[in-house]
Amino acid sequence: MEYKELSELVDKVSVFLQEKNFRAIKPLLEDEKPQDVALLLEELPDKDMPLVFRLLSKELAADTFVEMSTDSQEMLLNIFTDTELKAIFDEMFLDDTVDIIEEMPASVVKRIINQSDAETRNQINEILQYPKDSAGTIMTVEYVSLKKSWTVHQCFERIRKTALDKETIYTCYVTDEKRHLIGRVTVKDLLLHENNVKIDDIMETEVLSVETTDDKEYVAQQISKYDLNAMPVVDKEQRIVGIITVDDVLDVIEQEATEDIAKMAAVTPSTDSYLEQSVWQIWKNRIPWLLLLMVSATFTGLIINAYESTLSALLFACVPMLMGTGGNAGSQAAVTITRSLAIGEVRPADVFKVIWKELRVSLLLGAVLAIACFAKLYLLDGLAFGNPYTWEVCLTVSIALLITIVIAKLIGCLMPILAKVCRLDPAVVASPFITTIVDILSLVIYCLIAQSVLPAI
Amino acid sequence: MEYKELSELVDKVSVFLQEKNFRAIKPLLEDEKPQDVALLLEELPDKDMPLVFRLLSKELAADTFVEMSTDSQEMLLNIFTDTELKAIFDEMFLDDTVDIIEEMPASVVKRIINQSDAETRNQINEILQYPKDSAGTIMTVEYVSLKKSWTVHQCFERIRKTALDKETIYTCYVTDEKRHLIGRVTVKDLLLHENNVKIDDIMETEVLSVETTDDKEYVAQQISKYDLNAMPVVDKEQRIVGIITVDDVLDVIEQEATEDIAKMAAVTPSTDSYLEQSVWQIWKNRIPWLLLLMVSATFTGLIINAYESTLSALLFACVPMLMGTGGNAGSQAAVTITRSLAIGEVRPADVFKVIWKELRVSLLLGAVLAIACFAKLYLLDGLAFGNPYTWEVCLTVSIALLITIVIAKLIGCLMPILAKVCRLDPAVVASPFITTIVDILSLVIYCLIAQSVLPAI
Repeated sequence: MEYKELSELVDKVSVFLQEKNFRAIKPLLEDEKPQDVALLLEELPDKDMPLVFRLLSKELAADTFVEMSTDSQEMLLNIFTDTELKAIFDEMFLDDTVDIIEEMPASVVKRIINQSDAETRNQINEILQYPKDSAGTIMTVEYVSLKKSWTVHQCFERIRKTALDKETIYTCYVTDEKRHLIGRVTVKDLLLHENNVKIDDIMETEVLSVETTDDKEYVAQQISKYDLNAMPVVDKEQRIVGIITVDDVLDVIEQEATEDIAKMAAVTPSTDSYLEQSVWQIWKNRIPWLLLLMVSATFTGLIINAYESTLSALLFACVPMLMGTGGNAGSQAAVTITRSLAIGEVRPADVFKVIWKELRVSLLLGAVLAIACFAKLYLLDGLAFGNPYTWEVCLTVSIALLITIVIAKLIGCLMPILAKVCRLDPAVVASPFITTIVDILSLVIYCLIAQSVLPAI
Repeated sequence: MEYKELSELVDKVSVFLQEKNFRAIKPLLEDEKPQDVALLLEELPDKDMPLVFRLLSKELAADTFVEMSTDSQEMLLNIFTDTELKAIFDEMFLDDTVDIIEEMPASVVKRIINQSDAETRNQINEILQYPKDSAGTIMTVEYVSLKKSWTVHQCFERIRKTALDKETIYTCYVTDEKRHLIGRVTVKDLLLHENNVKIDDIMETEVLSVETTDDKEYVAQQISKYDLNAMPVVDKEQRIVGIITVDDVLDVIEQEATEDIAKMAAVTPSTDSYLEQSVWQIWKNRIPWLLLLMVSATFTGLIINAYESTLSALLFACVPMLMGTGGNAGSQAAVTITRSLAIGEVRPADVFKVIWKELRVSLLLGAVLAIACFAKLYLLDGLAFGNPYTWEVCLTVSIALLITIVIAKLIGCLMPILAKVCRLDPAVVASPFITTIVDILSLVIYCLIAQSVLPAI
């Protein structure tokens, strides 16, 4: 639904709400997708939202609830009766339940757990114990498992009986009596064989799987690389405990990219969307980085103070350009390498290939920029505007620029790889930190060159 | 396959190649996934690669070919006989064929087209005419279409007969005699109904679809938002012409994120991976931005020259810190808003909400940073190191910092939204451009404040 349609629907519902004509609202929403109903509810005033939510049919209510923001979920859970709460969570898939539980305060979690039956409660507790961002936390425990002695006909019976979520029935997993994963069969394979064929004869036995503790980003990479519809998740004993489907991975890929982008811009990532976050939350995610970078940037002040006698006002005027260009050159390399590491196109083992490449690129870039800089300073500023830039000053600036760019590129490509090797997050070091380091280095280089090239000034 | 296993396999194949024991290579590769075989071939020397490729079975050869880099594909196509070329492309899905054609030089394209039958040739030409990055260019024309008068049994017959790619059979589309899209049925729906039920009675008639000319990023957002397995693509007359499956969208999401990240770091995005790109290509993608940013950064030089008399060496020492912090604050906001726009969490219509939020956040951030800056300059530098920072100078720097941060945040959040409204790419303006603008503004603010607060100095 487009934004315009949504606004129109919000207006219609608001009118009916004012007229207290609740009967008219229900049919208006019943055919809409849960994602759109959730957006609509978020647009309504807080006092009306629960009212409209209670008008939804049981199934739509559960599907809509899953799509709502954490704040709205919490608000609804606080006013739900136990019966309402149970009705919603009974309709929900287990992985969605766990996602919600992870965001709620303890009192709400307790109520949810109390309303679940014993088996669900055990499963929830198990999933909650997997490490953060691991495969275990995003897997679905609802999947179709088959026995290898069954026929195609028996398998179809089983699939019909379990009739799970649309995305979890098309790839079925064959297990032995101890739940070890021994094969995989797709519904397509089943359709293409006669009813009396044994699964044993048609199943694929080379099945890729991940462990519950594997990182979800790794799972996403594997599913994307091998074009899979689903990936089975096994425990340490190779017993299947769940599956991760391609559409779960869609969210992971999008979220990981968002997180990396935030980190590269020196912001602590948040799982909430921008508009959902409070001013304090946004402040909290930004202030430590700005403070840290500000303090490290004051080193540049110390350097300038130290070389005060060397740097004439003329030389000073070029400092921002020099630092800016160095910073940009460094973050070009850093961000490129960080992203390549994240999507697995570059491995730490490629470090020498990367250095060799960046060295040549940076010399080419540096040469062009140095010549452009010299020409601009000497011809444009010097002759046209009558600014007294001598050719020695221009040369000093240009040489400093060339060296700065080469060093910036090398630091830019090395730091993310180094971070990866040390099991730190390459995205965190990627842009602002490298800029700060390059700032300091470029200033020192500039001052040193000025000292040696311009001894007379 | 992990990197280590791959290296071992490469070593084994290399040994067999030296021994000219080609028979031993074939069984080594036959059970591997095409993605891994492609990686292995890329690791071999150029002279051996075609040799090993020719050892693969017809199906594996085609699947592997699709996964290889453009350079390797071109090399192979140049040495293939017409028969080999036809064998490979006959095994391939049409969307993969088109992807390859788009990257190849004209002479190679001509050979591929000549080897295709008339129908394929027409389809290829049609797809090639869709605008860049549109739904038409990434859709699959192979899908299952059903008639509404058919029974469940007839539908299964049809699915068995077409037996397409795994991902394209699970959602089937119902069309009328003029190929208009009138409904959707999943294999799960079919499995859950008796054989004699009519499709008309079970199909969903509210089917989301996209047009061939819609942007692929929009398609990705829709599929991700509504958790779909596939999205039908229709032409201007609402006739179905193809489908886009969730795993095609996986690549789109990953690629779009990579492109946005590149643009934010002032690099022209490339579809080739970093290691595949030549030094010249990388140079070409980076030099225009660095030149542009360098030239705009020289404005800072002009400002410094203009205010030369106002800025004492002491005040000067704080310029890099001030500009750096302003730039960081600006890009925090810019990058956050750009990403939120890209994934649809923020719309241009939210502009006032965003400004109000950033205004409050920036005042809070600015206040804390200004106090920290004052304390650092006055107490640490001034008293501890004996640097003669008067409280007037400290105040000047701190006030300038506060104002710079507020302005940086406002520009940072407004520019991407403005770009979006003007149908420009928000990612391009996101980071380095905003930094440059903020640099210039912060310098001017600093000089103006210095002039008014420190008239005596």
